Amino acid sequence: MQGLMMDTPLLVSSLLTHADYNHADTDIVSRRVEGDIHRYTYGEAAARARQMANALTAAGLKPGERAATLAWNGYRHFELYYAISGIGSVMHTINPRLHPEQVAWIVNHAEDRILFFDATFAPIVDAIADKCPTVQHWVAMSDPDKMPELKNVSATSYEDFMAGQPTEYEWPVLDENTAACLCYTSGTTGNPKGILYSHRSLVLHTYGACLPDAFGVTAMDVVLPVVPMFHVNAWSLPYVGALGGVKLVFPGPKLDGESLYELFESEGVTISAGVPTVWQLVLQHLQKNKLQLSTLKRMTVGGSACPPALMETFEKEFGVRLEHAWGMTEMSPLGTYNHLKAKHQKLSEDEQFQVRIKQGRAVFGVEMKIVDENGKRQPQDGKSTGDLHVRGPWIIKQYFKKDESPLIDGWFPTGDVGHIDPDGYLTITDRTKDVIKSGGEWIGSIDLENIAMSHPAVATAACIAAKHEKWDERPLLLVQLKEGQSATKEDLLKHYEGKIAKWWTPDDILFVDGLPLGATGKVQKNKLRDEYGEHLLGKS
Amino acid sequence: MQGLMMDTPLLVSSLLTHADYNHADTDIVSRRVEGDIHRYTYGEAAARARQMANALTAAGLKPGERAATLAWNGYRHFELYYAISGIGSVMHTINPRLHPEQVAWIVNHAEDRILFFDATFAPIVDAIADKCPTVQHWVAMSDPDKMPELKNVSATSYEDFMAGQPTEYEWPVLDENTAACLCYTSGTTGNPKGILYSHRSLVLHTYGACLPDAFGVTAMDVVLPVVPMFHVNAWSLPYVGALGGVKLVFPGPKLDGESLYELFESEGVTISAGVPTVWQLVLQHLQKNKLQLSTLKRMTVGGSACPPALMETFEKEFGVRLEHAWGMTEMSPLGTYNHLKAKHQKLSEDEQFQVRIKQGRAVFGVEMKIVDENGKRQPQDGKSTGDLHVRGPWIIKQYFKKDESPLIDGWFPTGDVGHIDPDGYLTITDRTKDVIKSGGEWIGSIDLENIAMSHPAVATAACIAAKHEKWDERPLLLVQLKEGQSATKEDLLKHYEGKIAKWWTPDDILFVDGLPLGATGKVQKNKLRDEYGEHLLGKS
Repeated sequence: MQGLMMDTPLLVSSLLTHADYNHADTDIVSRRVEGDIHRYTYGEAAARARQMANALTAAGLKPGERAATLAWNGYRHFELYYAISGIGSVMHTINPRLHPEQVAWIVNHAEDRILFFDATFAPIVDAIADKCPTVQHWVAMSDPDKMPELKNVSATSYEDFMAGQPTEYEWPVLDENTAACLCYTSGTTGNPKGILYSHRSLVLHTYGACLPDAFGVTAMDVVLPVVPMFHVNAWSLPYVGALGGVKLVFPGPKLDGESLYELFESEGVTISAGVPTVWQLVLQHLQKNKLQLSTLKRMTVGGSACPPALMETFEKEFGVRLEHAWGMTEMSPLGTYNHLKAKHQKLSEDEQFQVRIKQGRAVFGVEMKIVDENGKRQPQDGKSTGDLHVRGPWIIKQYFKKDESPLIDGWFPTGDVGHIDPDGYLTITDRTKDVIKSGGEWIGSIDLENIAMSHPAVATAACIAAKHEKWDERPLLLVQLKEGQSATKEDLLKHYEGKIAKWWTPDDILFVDGLPLGATGKVQKNKLRDEYGEHLLGKS
Repeated sequence: MQGLMMDTPLLVSSLLTHADYNHADTDIVSRRVEGDIHRYTYGEAAARARQMANALTAAGLKPGERAATLAWNGYRHFELYYAISGIGSVMHTINPRLHPEQVAWIVNHAEDRILFFDATFAPIVDAIADKCPTVQHWVAMSDPDKMPELKNVSATSYEDFMAGQPTEYEWPVLDENTAACLCYTSGTTGNPKGILYSHRSLVLHTYGACLPDAFGVTAMDVVLPVVPMFHVNAWSLPYVGALGGVKLVFPGPKLDGESLYELFESEGVTISAGVPTVWQLVLQHLQKNKLQLSTLKRMTVGGSACPPALMETFEKEFGVRLEHAWGMTEMSPLGTYNHLKAKHQKLSEDEQFQVRIKQGRAVFGVEMKIVDENGKRQPQDGKSTGDLHVRGPWIIKQYFKKDESPLIDGWFPTGDVGHIDPDGYLTITDRTKDVIKSGGEWIGSIDLENIAMSHPAVATAACIAAKHEKWDERPLLLVQLKEGQSATKEDLLKHYEGKIAKWWTPDDILFVDGLPLGATGKVQKNKLRDEYGEHLLGKS
């Protein structure tokens, strides 16, 4: 027997409509590529998104067809998020940090019809224009009088593209399983793979992301997403903002510590979100200039594990709480978020901190399990370590244009290794491919890196599995020291004493000038393995 | 083109599974009908719900069939919420405050197969047993040695009913549109009407109810739902608790001020929810015994408008914030919730209070509009008053076993009258049927009642439309004074001066010993109109 409630589909457009009706005069502030600060409201954003919907339709973009962006976080990007998905087409965000060859490959794979780009990325457009035959319109997200110079293609300005279109538009009532957004992962090997989100998955994910034990935003908040809108929809914050009626502050191209600090203070930002590297930059700026943060309360840290030392400094010196979240592009991205429970209130600050450095608890909607090499579910005891598998309504079942299923028994294997404690807190100890298998036992590289980074002289560190005659693999640590600081191999090895089991201690430590980073800012360990993977051979 | 995310259905059972995995040792505390305090965990509740699922299946309850409850808020009721819906059958909560004739009518209309009842309600069971041929099992929610005496039927104890069943059970993966719960409204006229919630509507509603700008619960909270589980699923708090991992405290049959106060303090309750009458009882107990509340922070007030005086007293004298919510059985029930926005921080406390006495803003998922007599949408200006229509995925499209649609152009007419301001805040001024039409202009009875109740001598008040020779209808106020207090008609009329337009002032005031209340505690204005509706005729 079926229930008798309304068959209202979950649609991305309803988020903006909700903001338009309930938060019409709440601000959206953007630092523009043009250099100035732009300020308008959800009411105006909704009107311009409707105008853009008419413009896209007039330009011939059809339901199901893809329109792409190469853009920073800003109000025009925000409008496109809603306009493109809203008319039933697919919003395709491209990571501009990829090599132009890869961008072209992605545009062709997605068969993008329109490509919107910030002036900053004109060189990419010039480089790919003649390799992308599916693109019918190139639109620069610029004022008409601030158009970038292009050699190989003629582009329209965003404002001209939608000029003359009415701001009235009735968002279509789509099937909620209609594709809404497309985002490619830049894997370390092979071609990028496309993840095709549906209206349903995005709206459900937004409900989950807004929960008090996740981002927990209210109409009192001012949120600055540092995480880029080309990176898994900025962790859904452009949707979260509309649902919660929060003031959004978009930082545009300026992601240095000084520029972010300036916006935090001038706009009264209460919550921000980004990868640890960004918070490191902000911290350096604060410390160098002896500044304080007057309104910021919480920062969500994701993308990679946050060095505990960074969390501690922000909390003790600046009164800002860093909160761990964990997810993947294949998960929209939110899997877990770290908030304490009532039972933790009895613990000492230090004991609470030991809970808070875990990746967090599953957001309702996500189920997790740890399995061993045979796929057998492991106990949830905070110790049994294995592969992490997930499932839920905002988790991928298939990659775009790929026939084979990535699932195992209906679960998505994340490629992460970790354990889950009886309170549901996940700890990621490694990537499946980065785990160090020493004499049949697993060593987690992340723990070893965190300890290294807690040494005052260390800027960053990476631990890889190096081949070993006797133990098959042993940990090798690569360290980049802070400018002007020094430490010896012996200093660092001593720093491990008492912090881990002795046999986990790295066999050797090499000092390097920098670590190779991928397009999303993560250390490319495969490159390190290629270079240093045989370093220990013939030494023991 | 369809998205490529998992087709995971939204199911009620997933809420309990989530709590079982993430909050297994969080407490659920119940004051039992047996008299004592019962304490166990979500882990144990989940195991017993699975055991009950096996017992229901063994008793022959089939998918789609209804099993009913006549019960207080308690752990066994909580287990049934999940067990009955979880196996694909329909959880039917019956309001035990209805006349036994009506209860029998409802049981027959629903064709209930099993009826679970608290010992308190044994007299109802005795009265209806031979009138309810569909019921195959009568189960007393009692310990085997505390069974109530029954004359007309033989009942099993809840514990015996599920004894010997395994606690292992795999919840079926149902179509998310499957019916999960049934609840009848007790309209003032005609037979009760059944609202049939689906798994999808309940889970979406739970996401909405948990949002920071709605109940906003976290795993730090302790929630005591005073609102009964037979009244629109206790405003969804048994589901909200599981999603949020909150400690739940069920008050059982003792809903007096003293008993509630005792639980608030002994269990460290942080959030509670119920109708204004309950808070009035709590307030009286606090004031009479000069007590303070040490952990309670917020109380949700719904069911009817909260007298502003009550809100003010709780806040100023006890530091507890009363928050308005508004909804209906047909809306699962949540429509709006009142939280302030960032812009209101600049206002004075008094100005903020003027916002806070409104019914609140739409929870994302609910759309609202005000229409005039011709169905034309009215501006959202905080003034234009008319009928309130709503739509969304947790709003009814049809009543159970009724062919005709209650909708108008796809919207559900709430029967409430009000206006919505530019910030989205709804103000209910009246029920459509209670509105006073004086010379073609509308007068809102709720405003007139609130002003009367802000007079220190007034316990409660009701304003009705009395027939009038010249103006068709004029307001007539019925007042019940507080014990030991006195006030004259002239005192009260003077109290209106400067607070409303002069022509809104009631034409007459009558003092009564009490007001007729319906089964959900609301004043039955139709009875008052029958008795006093012609009071003003021949007087002007």
